[in-house]
Order: sequence, then structure tokens, then C-alpha cells
Amino acid sequence: MKMSVIGGGSWGTALVKLVSANASEVCWWIHNSESVEHVKKFGHNPRYVQSLEINTNKVKPTSSLSEAIDASDIIIIATPAAFLQQVFEQAGIVSLSDKKIFCAIKGMVPEHHAIPAHYFEQYLKVPHKQMGIICGPCHAEEVALERLSYLTIASPNITLAEEMAAHLRCRYIKTIVSDDLYGAELAAVLKNIYALGAGIAGGLGYGDNYMAVYISNCLREMEVFVDAVHPIHRDVKTSAYLGDLLVTAYSKFSRNRTFGYMIGQGYSVKAAQLEMQMIAEGYYAVRSIMEMNRKYNVQIPITNGIYRILYEKMSPTVEMRIISDFLT
Amino acid sequence: MKMSVIGGGSWGTALVKLVSANASEVCWWIHNSESVEHVKKFGHNPRYVQSLEINTNKVKPTSSLSEAIDASDIIIIATPAAFLQQVFEQAGIVSLSDKKIFCAIKGMVPEHHAIPAHYFEQYLKVPHKQMGIICGPCHAEEVALERLSYLTIASPNITLAEEMAAHLRCRYIKTIVSDDLYGAELAAVLKNIYALGAGIAGGLGYGDNYMAVYISNCLREMEVFVDAVHPIHRDVKTSAYLGDLLVTAYSKFSRNRTFGYMIGQGYSVKAAQLEMQMIAEGYYAVRSIMEMNRKYNVQIPITNGIYRILYEKMSPTVEMRIISDFLT
Repeated sequence: MKMSVIGGGSWGTALVKLVSANASEVCWWIHNSESVEHVKKFGHNPRYVQSLEINTNKVKPTSSLSEAIDASDIIIIATPAAFLQQVFEQAGIVSLSDKKIFCAIKGMVPEHHAIPAHYFEQYLKVPHKQMGIICGPCHAEEVALERLSYLTIASPNITLAEEMAAHLRCRYIKTIVSDDLYGAELAAVLKNIYALGAGIAGGLGYGDNYMAVYISNCLREMEVFVDAVHPIHRDVKTSAYLGDLLVTAYSKFSRNRTFGYMIGQGYSVKAAQLEMQMIAEGYYAVRSIMEMNRKYNVQIPITNGIYRILYEKMSPTVEMRIISDFLT
Repeated sequence: MKMSVIGGGSWGTALVKLVSANASEVCWWIHNSESVEHVKKFGHNPRYVQSLEINTNKVKPTSSLSEAIDASDIIIIATPAAFLQQVFEQAGIVSLSDKKIFCAIKGMVPEHHAIPAHYFEQYLKVPHKQMGIICGPCHAEEVALERLSYLTIASPNITLAEEMAAHLRCRYIKTIVSDDLYGAELAAVLKNIYALGAGIAGGLGYGDNYMAVYISNCLREMEVFVDAVHPIHRDVKTSAYLGDLLVTAYSKFSRNRTFGYMIGQGYSVKAAQLEMQMIAEGYYAVRSIMEMNRKYNVQIPITNGIYRILYEKMSPTVEMRIISDFLT
């Protein structure tokens, strides 16, 4: 059984570890060719989750995307959403119609204001029944430490979801299978926005009491929005929705939360980006969600407020006060 | 407008601060007579939330329960559930039928395996329509710091709930009114059990990924149990249920979580109690919930596991592994 993993970030690295336990061969695309050489030589990713050991007997790193895609029929995508289109365009890939694609991305494709599953279906011609996603709650660092974690694998094709679940399952990974491909992926995007907002609230000095109320309202806003976009039955109190929101919004290691914290403390968006030398997914996501919501026109006051802070230079103090008036 | 507050712990102290802003006089019962003298002299509680200033022009502390009860028609109860019956028995109080009672207690009355609202109705003859509860999420320490917090006031008598909400509301307190007296009170009890379990998991070395899944499962177990006991329509994704669970289970300051953490680290129940010099409400609550569940017979595997650890000397490692198999 062969598999490919696209993306050399921390989540990609953790997924390589997981699938390489059960697969006979894993082809791993990493953008940076120095990292490719490092993995080949030393058996670990030099830039992310360094402590995680890669079994180089099975894992074949490459910096050629076409090579990684040609290598197998099941492909896990774990690049940042912001670079997704660029990566596939540069490699000249126009169709993945014969592949089974699992997204492990938690952001929107900014050029199309689309969740990754939509992007693959619409622009890279992946048939709906060949699409799946892998969602948390799962910090890559805890996979490296082999701490018990639960992954949700969603696909409209339940057999395919179960196949991937069987690949990922091990002593410290339990899996849950779902048919809510679009809803779970959208929830994974929204939770980054809410975590960013949790950071802003923290930076402004709001306490634990507020945070608990804020997050319970985020869950309800998430439910209303996801139900409007993909109206199928789902329980947002389950791991892929509430669990993922909690691990992101309460974690001090979340980039989205940290980015928001700096904004709350008075940094401008530019200064926070410079300081962090990276951009949090939630920053792009909030713009795409606002764009999507032109069509659905759902009441999402939390997302609105965060958008105004990040894109319209409105005061975090004022906007968080407006948000707080909506909370119940 | 006169009011009485029963209980000199941290939550009682915070409530005295809140109601004294709007009431003309607040009679405050504190068990410890030295504390009564201290409050009179220095305007703060010497044992809990010391930083909180008490307006002694309005607040009249007393160590006589009958005096406090006679002083007003609206009484807020904030004693630990474990001592509730003892306190009222010793003072010889047999009826409160002409009073409006608001419970601000998060535990079961152990002698009757009853939530406090039931106890007041059944044993102290408070008419159902005169009962209410005040619930969080709300750490008393954050009330002292005047950090924005949300309280839910529940009563079958919505006018009464609104009356109390108006008393509590201020610049940093927002209020939500609900008719789910029994359900919200039961949820406040259950969340202590789940926070205790979160502590056990933390003490055993489970990480953030697990915690997020555990808590999302706790919310669903809470929903199933509360719906079985009091089948009315409610949304457990709101502040009084999910919010209160979050603030307790994620707080490092929660006594229940700390107690659980010690158990997870290998302390015996006795040793943990000695070390903490106090008992966490969740310890009593889990026994009462198990007792209640003989009647309802609901699947509550998380509560079951915690009960076996605390009362049947079962291994936390083994029980948490059994719980983890139930999580989805």
C-alpha cells in the first residue's frame, strides 16, 4: 500500500509518521529541498517537530510535486491553504481526477474563498466521492509524543473514510468516521477565526469567565453558519467541531491565538505579522468567510467584529465590547 | 430593597459585592464569628477573595442564621452543598415557605442525593415558584477584579428570575434569564465531576488533544443525563452548561481539577484530601449522581469511571483507558 503526503509543516510531518506505520511506502513532498536532503540523511524534519523520527526505509522525501503525486493513488494534502493554488499551479498539475485526495488543511483557499475540498473538486477535477478530509483536535507535537489523540475522517464515501481511518489508527490514535466532508472542513476553518478572537480578548485583559462564554457562543455561531452552508444533520458538540475549537482556542501554542493576542495588546496587523514572521490561517479565513457570507447572509457577529479589527482598522477594545453585547 | 446572603466562602463574598451595589441593605451570614468581626472592622473577608472590598454601610455581617433569614424576603444561598443540611438543622430552621430562595451552590446535598433546589422545596417547604438559582461561568476572583462575566439566573418564575437579574447586573456583569431551574443546577453539579476527571487525565499525562475530546464528550454525557432527569427543551451549548463546564475544567485554579490531578498523579483519595485540607464538591457529587442514576439508568461512562476511581479504589490508569474507549 503506497501513499503520498504533500507538505512538510508540522501537521504534514505528524501525518507522515502516522501513515508510514501502516503503508508500505510513503512519498513525502516537502517544498524546501534542503529539508528533503536532511530528512533523507538524518530521519527527521529539520524545521518542524524535530523530535519526531521518520522511518527512512519507508518514507521517500522529494521536492518534486509531480513525482509525489504520480507515486500513489491516495494523497494527503497538508500545505497551508494560502499557498495551495500556487503549489499546484507551479507544478503544472491540472487534474487529479484519478486520485483519492484527503485534505488535512485548516484554511480557506484565498483566491476562491473556498474550502480546500471545494477547490480540489472544482479546479482539480477530483470526483466528490474520491474526496476526504482528516481533522483534529490534534496538535502535531502531541502526535510526536505519542499522546492519545482522536482524528475524524470525513468523506461522502464512507468506505473511503474507513479505509483512511484504518491507515491512521494506532496505539495512540483513535479514529471517528463521518460523512460531513464540507461541514467539518468549514468548522476547522472557523475555529481558527474564533481562536484568533480568543487571543484578542486575552490580549485586552478579558478573563476566564468571559472566555468560557465567548467560546460557547463561538460554537453556536459556528453551528448556525455551517448549517446554513451545508444543511445536513450534524452534532457540533462532537470532537471535530467542539473538540477542535477547544484545542485551538485554549492552547497557548496556537498561532492564531498568539496572533490575536498581539492585536489585543495593541500591535497593528503588520507589526504582529512581522514579529511572528508568519501569518495565522485565521487572518485569511475571516476575509473568505465574510465573502462567503454575502451569499448566506447569516448573523455572525463574532466573525464580523474580528473582520473589522483585522481589515478595517477598527479598535479591538470597541469591537470586543460590541461582540460582548451579542453573547448570551 | 433588602437581601440576605448565606455563606462566607469566595462565591458568597463575590455575591455580596454584587448585590450590595443595588440593594439598600444586605445581611450576610458567615459561619465563622471571627470573620464576621473582621468584615465589620476592615471591610473585607479575611479568608476568601481578600482583595474584594465590602461596603460596610450597607452590608451587615452576622453569625446568626435566623437573624440573616429574618432580615429579608430574598435570600441567596452560597454555602457548600455538603454542609447545607447541617447549617439549617443546627439553626432549627424548618420552613422557608415565605421566602424567595436563590441557590448559588454547585453541589448535591449528600444526605438526600438531591440538588439544592430540590432540597429547599422538599425539606424546607419553599414553593417551586419562589425558587431560583444563580449560575456561572464565574470565578469569584474575577468578580473581585471586575472582569466582564455572565451569570445565568434560572427560575420557573421568570419574573422572579428577571428581578434577581436586575439586582446582579452591573458594568461588568451581564445576565441571562432561563426557566431551567433543575437542569441548570444539575449541570453545575456535573461539571465539577467532569473537571475532577479532567484533572485525573492531566495527572496521568494525557495532553491537550485528549482533553478537548474528553470535554466535548462530557458535554454530551451531561446533556443525556440532564435531559433524562428533566426532559424540557434546553441548549447545552449555552453559557450555563458549556460555559460553566469550560471555566471549571480548563481552570488550573479549580479545586475539583486540582483534586483530580493529585489522584491522577498517584495520591490516594485520603492523601489528596489531607494535602488540600478540603474536599472538592465533585467528590461528593459523583456518589450522588450514581445514586440518582439508579432511577434513570442512563449511560454515563465518564461519571462511572470517576466513581470507580474515587470510591472503589480502581486504578486511574485503567479507568481512564476504559473512559477513552467510550469517547468519540
